Amino acid sequence: METLHVVKVGGAVVEDAQKLERLLQSFAALPGRKLLVHGGGRAATALSARLGIETRMVGGRRITDAATLETVVMVYGGLVNKSLVARLQALGIPAAGLCGADFDCVRSVKRPVGEVDYGFVGDIVSVDAGALSRLLEAGTVPVIAPITHDGAGQLLNTNADAMASAVAAALSKYYAVSLKLCFEKPGVLADPADDGSVIPVLAAADIPALTASGTLSGGMLPKVEGALKALEQGVGEVVITSYNALAGGTRVCL
Amino acid sequence: METLHVVKVGGAVVEDAQKLERLLQSFAALPGRKLLVHGGGRAATALSARLGIETRMVGGRRITDAATLETVVMVYGGLVNKSLVARLQALGIPAAGLCGADFDCVRSVKRPVGEVDYGFVGDIVSVDAGALSRLLEAGTVPVIAPITHDGAGQLLNTNADAMASAVAAALSKYYAVSLKLCFEKPGVLADPADDGSVIPVLAAADIPALTASGTLSGGMLPKVEGALKALEQGVGEVVITSYNALAGGTRVCL
Repeated sequence: METLHVVKVGGAVVEDAQKLERLLQSFAALPGRKLLVHGGGRAATALSARLGIETRMVGGRRITDAATLETVVMVYGGLVNKSLVARLQALGIPAAGLCGADFDCVRSVKRPVGEVDYGFVGDIVSVDAGALSRLLEAGTVPVIAPITHDGAGQLLNTNADAMASAVAAALSKYYAVSLKLCFEKPGVLADPADDGSVIPVLAAADIPALTASGTLSGGMLPKVEGALKALEQGVGEVVITSYNALAGGTRVCL
Repeated sequence: METLHVVKVGGAVVEDAQKLERLLQSFAALPGRKLLVHGGGRAATALSARLGIETRMVGGRRITDAATLETVVMVYGGLVNKSLVARLQALGIPAAGLCGADFDCVRSVKRPVGEVDYGFVGDIVSVDAGALSRLLEAGTVPVIAPITHDGAGQLLNTNADAMASAVAAALSKYYAVSLKLCFEKPGVLADPADDGSVIPVLAAADIPALTASGTLSGGMLPKVEGALKALEQGVGEVVITSYNALAGGTRVCL
């Protein structure tokens, strides 16, 4: 099977011009088939503030009313996505920006109202790996915004990590997928204050002890959980690494 | 040659939910290969106003400073484009939203500063008809936002009528292109107050007299000029018609 690199980059990198340029250059240098999934939450929060729309987060998830949905569609699907595509094109990468509605490639269902009403938040139900694979085989580099649709005309706000995991898992049918989750740090750190303390291999069996000791905490927990889920769904390799070189980092193993 | 329908729909229809639904249903019912180009200027003006960005128009063209460019990329490339795609998908149409940067399909050059500095406005220099044709031949229905790029990473605001004409002309290499320019009226009217007075055929030779008499005026003049230019560039048929049925209307001839 051919290798496919699925790279996920979050808002903190996307919104820092220098870091973004490094990420895009590293991404452009990756050999073979590749695909980028991006976030952009901070820019959405900033635009909401300018529009006088209150941002409400519950457990790290954005409560998405109709006005907030418009904002995230504009920021993720428009501004961030098209800016990334234009910059990749300038680097000679044949990029095409997509959200889940384009080519009907990622469908979701509006999250049922439970204790919390998340509003127009979509949980992914299907990925059309065939549609994405046809683009990849035509030499295209998809750049995917975390917006999905329900097939009945409704756009839905979707978590970018969930988008990356679902796309990586679905494409494992056709490729040996290497999923790289990029952020500001060089990997999972044994000592959060020391960037030189990257844990090179993180096995599922080690996670309870590392969580109990506080080595894994905060935003790293869902990242590691997402990595394990992707591996369980057939993704060949998951690495938590820096935007800087897309090399090194922490390889997560079952 | 197979027929390709290129339909251009402007902001006034895009931003009226009922008219838009009629347009999308009419578009969905068109047989064979098809492609939609949309505007969205009124929504961009409204968002700019909410963000405290002044909208300046010169000769019907938007002066596009950096803040305005962000706004139009968000509105045209994000909100309007993805909403249209999701609604077309709900009608069973395999739509994919694009701007000129995606697939590097439409390149432009920043308009040189003359008497007026239009800012980040792009004049189209090339259309990759091959890239668009590959999408069409794969059964995809492209939905194109009037945003282009310069190939060096810069997004540019581009007139939607110019986008539709350029795309239609370039695709005439592969298809018998029928370009439909849709708006609120049923066609070019002999009496602007009477929707029943549609001129069925408008020949280039008639235009000077109709302009002198005031029958052709205002926003209709650039539309007719664009139609003639498209015909000169090989487009098989240009019809100015209503969003309502995409039938009837005024056929413009050389």
